[in-house]
Amino acid sequence: MRLRLTVAYDGTQFSGWQSQAHGRAVQDALESAFRLLCGERVVVHGAGRTDSGVHAEGQSAHVDVPDDRLPDDAWLPAINAHIPPGVRVMRLKKAAPDFHARFSARGKIYRYSIWNGPVMPPLLINRVWHVPGKLDAGLLRSACEAFTGRHDFAAFCARGSKAPEPTTRTVSAIRLARKGPALAIAFEGEGFLYKMVRMLVASAIRCASGRISHDEIRLRLENAGPRTNHVAPAGGLCLVRVLY
Amino acid sequence: MRLRLTVAYDGTQFSGWQSQAHGRAVQDALESAFRLLCGERVVVHGAGRTDSGVHAEGQSAHVDVPDDRLPDDAWLPAINAHIPPGVRVMRLKKAAPDFHARFSARGKIYRYSIWNGPVMPPLLINRVWHVPGKLDAGLLRSACEAFTGRHDFAAFCARGSKAPEPTTRTVSAIRLARKGPALAIAFEGEGFLYKMVRMLVASAIRCASGRISHDEIRLRLENAGPRTNHVAPAGGLCLVRVLY
Repeated sequence: MRLRLTVAYDGTQFSGWQSQAHGRAVQDALESAFRLLCGERVVVHGAGRTDSGVHAEGQSAHVDVPDDRLPDDAWLPAINAHIPPGVRVMRLKKAAPDFHARFSARGKIYRYSIWNGPVMPPLLINRVWHVPGKLDAGLLRSACEAFTGRHDFAAFCARGSKAPEPTTRTVSAIRLARKGPALAIAFEGEGFLYKMVRMLVASAIRCASGRISHDEIRLRLENAGPRTNHVAPAGGLCLVRVLY
Repeated sequence: MRLRLTVAYDGTQFSGWQSQAHGRAVQDALESAFRLLCGERVVVHGAGRTDSGVHAEGQSAHVDVPDDRLPDDAWLPAINAHIPPGVRVMRLKKAAPDFHARFSARGKIYRYSIWNGPVMPPLLINRVWHVPGKLDAGLLRSACEAFTGRHDFAAFCARGSKAPEPTTRTVSAIRLARKGPALAIAFEGEGFLYKMVRMLVASAIRCASGRISHDEIRLRLENAGPRTNHVAPAGGLCLVRVLY
C-alpha cells in the first residue's frame, strides 16, 4: 500500500531533508518511525531535498507499507507519535501505486521571508533574513521579473553537483508581498537547482540595495556574467507546497 | 533624560518580564545592559508584567539615563548589543519627564493564538495553543461578546495576589480572526487582571467545544458561578501594544 504524506518541519532542528550517516535528517526521523511500525526497513521518498535550516510547511513524500499493518486512519497519529515534534506529518492518505512524490511532481512553491526593518524581532530568528538597509521596491520587482520565465540558471546554482546537469529551468511565477517591514517572495516553478532560490533572493536583494545593477542580473541570466557566490540564509526559506 | 522603549521578546527564553532573584527576566536583561552603559544601576519600568512564556511584540518601558552619556541615536544599537537576541528594543525615543510606561498607559492589546487543526505545525510550537477538536464559531463569538464591556472579572483571575484588589475591568473590544485552522483572538482593554486573558480564552474555548454552557460563562461574569481554574497556555499569548 502506497501512502502519500504532507510533511512540515522546523529546519533548524534537522540537517536537511535527505538521509545522513549521522541520522539527523528529516527523512531519517520518518524512516525510523516507519521501520518501527512496519517491522521492516522502508524508504520514504521525498519530492526533493531541502538544505539544513530550510523549513517546510508542505514537503511531500511517499512510502510503501504492508497492507494490513494498521487501520488506514491510524497511520497519521502513529507516525506522529514516533517522530520528534520538530517534524509532523500534517496529512496522510492512500495514493495510487504509480504515484511518486518526486517524479509525479509538476512543480513546487517556495517562500523566502525577509525582515526589512532596523531591528530583528526575536520571534523571527531563524525564520527570516534580516536585511536592515533600504530596498528599492522598483528594482526588487524588476529583478524578480527578470528571473521569471525559462532561463539557463547556471550562474545561480551552487557548485557541488557531481555530474554536469542541465541548468535550464522555468520559473513560472514570482510573487512579492510586503506588509510593513515583512517581505515575502514566493517562487513557483517546475523545479529549482541546488540553492537556486536562495541565490536568486540574494541577487535580487543586492540589486534592490544598489550593490549590483539590473544589467549584472541580466548578464548572469544570459550566462555572460560571473556566477554569483551570494546565498541568502537558509532560515528564510520555506517549502510551501509541492504541486501535482 | 527619560527614554521610552518598545520591547519585543520571545517569552520562552525568559522567566517573564519582571525582575527575578535568578536574573532570567526580560527586565533583568535590560537593566544589566543599561547599568553597563550608564555606569550606575537604573530601573527599567515596564507597562506591566508578562508571565513566563508569554511573548511581546510591543511591551513598553521607560528608563532614566544620564543626559550626556551617549549621543541620542546611539542608545538603541548600544542596548541591543548588550542584551541577548531573544529580546530586542525595537524603538527608542526621548520621552517627556512625566511620561510613565505604566501610569501613562491607557490600555493594552493582547493577541491569543490558537491552532485549531488536527496536527500541530512544528514552526508554531510555543507560539500557539493547539486545540485539535471542533469549535463552534457561534459559541466562540458569543462568549467573546459576553466578555466585552465592564465586568467584575473576579472569576477569571488567578489567585496569588496578596491584597484583595478591585477586580472590575473594562474590555473595550475582542476581535476574532480566523484563517483556516489559525485562530487569533485580540483583546483590548484598559488593563487586565493576573492571567485574565488566558482564563478568558480557556473559558471561551471550553464553551466553543461544548464543555461548558454559555450560561456558565454568564454566571461567572455575575460572580454567581465558581471561579475557573482553566488557564490557556502562556505560549499562545502575545502583548501586541501598549496604548497611550
